Amino acid sequence: MSEARIWHGGDLDEARRLFPEAPEPWIDLSTGINPIAYPMPSLPASLFERLPSPADHKDLEAAAAEAYGASDVTKVVAAPGTQVLISLLPALWTPSRVAILGPTYAEHAHAWRGAGHEVAEIGTIDAAENADIVVVVNPNNPDGRLLGREALLEVAANLQRRGGWLVVDEAFADFDGGETLVPVLPENAIVLRSFGKTYGLAGVRLGFAIAATGVATKLRRALGPWSVSGPAMEVGRWAMRDHGWRLAAQEARTADTRRLDALLAPHSDRALGGTILYRLMGSSRAPELFAHMGRHGIWVRRFQYDPRLLRFGLPGSDEAWRRLESALASFS
Amino acid sequence: MSEARIWHGGDLDEARRLFPEAPEPWIDLSTGINPIAYPMPSLPASLFERLPSPADHKDLEAAAAEAYGASDVTKVVAAPGTQVLISLLPALWTPSRVAILGPTYAEHAHAWRGAGHEVAEIGTIDAAENADIVVVVNPNNPDGRLLGREALLEVAANLQRRGGWLVVDEAFADFDGGETLVPVLPENAIVLRSFGKTYGLAGVRLGFAIAATGVATKLRRALGPWSVSGPAMEVGRWAMRDHGWRLAAQEARTADTRRLDALLAPHSDRALGGTILYRLMGSSRAPELFAHMGRHGIWVRRFQYDPRLLRFGLPGSDEAWRRLESALASFS
Repeated sequence: MSEARIWHGGDLDEARRLFPEAPEPWIDLSTGINPIAYPMPSLPASLFERLPSPADHKDLEAAAAEAYGASDVTKVVAAPGTQVLISLLPALWTPSRVAILGPTYAEHAHAWRGAGHEVAEIGTIDAAENADIVVVVNPNNPDGRLLGREALLEVAANLQRRGGWLVVDEAFADFDGGETLVPVLPENAIVLRSFGKTYGLAGVRLGFAIAATGVATKLRRALGPWSVSGPAMEVGRWAMRDHGWRLAAQEARTADTRRLDALLAPHSDRALGGTILYRLMGSSRAPELFAHMGRHGIWVRRFQYDPRLLRFGLPGSDEAWRRLESALASFS
Repeated sequence: MSEARIWHGGDLDEARRLFPEAPEPWIDLSTGINPIAYPMPSLPASLFERLPSPADHKDLEAAAAEAYGASDVTKVVAAPGTQVLISLLPALWTPSRVAILGPTYAEHAHAWRGAGHEVAEIGTIDAAENADIVVVVNPNNPDGRLLGREALLEVAANLQRRGGWLVVDEAFADFDGGETLVPVLPENAIVLRSFGKTYGLAGVRLGFAIAATGVATKLRRALGPWSVSGPAMEVGRWAMRDHGWRLAAQEARTADTRRLDALLAPHSDRALGGTILYRLMGSSRAPELFAHMGRHGIWVRRFQYDPRLLRFGLPGSDEAWRRLESALASFS
């Protein structure tokens, strides 16, 4: 594992350490993963036993190219999750000035700093003008801030003039994706897409980079052949071609988001943010609310950089909704 | 996929292109993967749906440390297959002189060259004396050449004196492992171990590096958290603690190897080489034998660097043995 300094969602062991008296089972609302997973296809034993075939790997990238609107399948690189791409990208450049639009997912800054780059967190995209590399999570995690496609193209064009690069992490763009850069990808831009969040299958480890051929080739070389498992390849190819499921999931999760907002709004001092897969609230009483939820066996996400923020993922069952409603109602 | 120049085993699509008239199903003897897989444990849906937990990741590394005889679990780094480690290692050093004991698994030279190192293939370990980094596959693929532990320790000590590093790929050491370097790992050595070959589960993607803390930390950083899938983590933890299965498999595959040798010896001009998971024969008629086997729907491994060599993996069923015996008997 990487150093333990970065907080992440999804670690119920940590929840149990902090709240040993909480009722089981825990309800994990600490991630932005779709709680209603894509139904796994049946997985023949050969998927576990044989090396994944080059033809299946290419077909997986073709399914991703179609799903994301990439013009050219050679620009799509499959990987065992988006995280490894975040970790590998910084090694493609000599030490540079990197501006990350923040606050955002902490692994970006961690990876670029770890590779020896000079990293600055910027609060607005206009502050990126001296950077060699600009990193934007769009829509942003955790607040849902969304930059328009035209604005990003302008950033890329400015970077292009000085030989710079734009990295756009579109991990949450499947359901909130009107502004995706993939179909109009500039030569100096790299887009990251996540499979596990949208399809509720974070454990299979599957993600993609979409980038011009030179960068795509370097990423392929860093990963080597067969980095994606047979089961991930199989479910990825099925799921990304299942447009009906994705549209139905988008609609259902949008309704969930509205329901969650109605529960959180009375406890938030400000307008709620987030995406269709999680909501962000702000309150001076957030630390007490975090502890209150923990004592009720509900694990939500807090943030090192601002203790007033809490992020809530979507409940995945009637029982989880009931427990969330009840816990929030008893907070005073 | 990486560039198509390197030939690999396991690609039946290629077999079908070359021998479109061959009977189905193909018998794939082109890899060194155990044909009798470890029985997959039942995989609860949560393994696919949730992010793998840090505790499970640590437990996987603990199981590997025990199985491989590592003195310290912090030296063990789990990865989605050994290949990604082979691909990532070269980025840890500035351009250096790399000596690879060859001929051997081609991805090593490919990865080091791709990262800008000066790579020389050496025929004996004594020729490594000017290298900064020495790479040894032990036992070697494809010929099974085995360097003794004392010889490797001496190489490592010589390298240490000039700040150099030793990389030992022990992909086939689980069944042929008397000389493994893991229990006596020098500070300047890195050992790679493969899970998929021994356990017949190449599709799950799981492999390990064992290295001093500094290198282990760099590899962890390059992979990021969660690079290993939930299913790989689960079966890895089970299988590597199942000593009974491993010993029984070793015994059974050793018997298979003897049976295969008896079939191949009449066709080989020289002593057979290899490991317990594959056998290497040499014959001036190897190209004809390769084509003969292909026409019989049996896919074996040939080598770009020497057309007189063929590598045969182990058949995994009575039917596969019968077809192999019959095809070899009809070759004249």
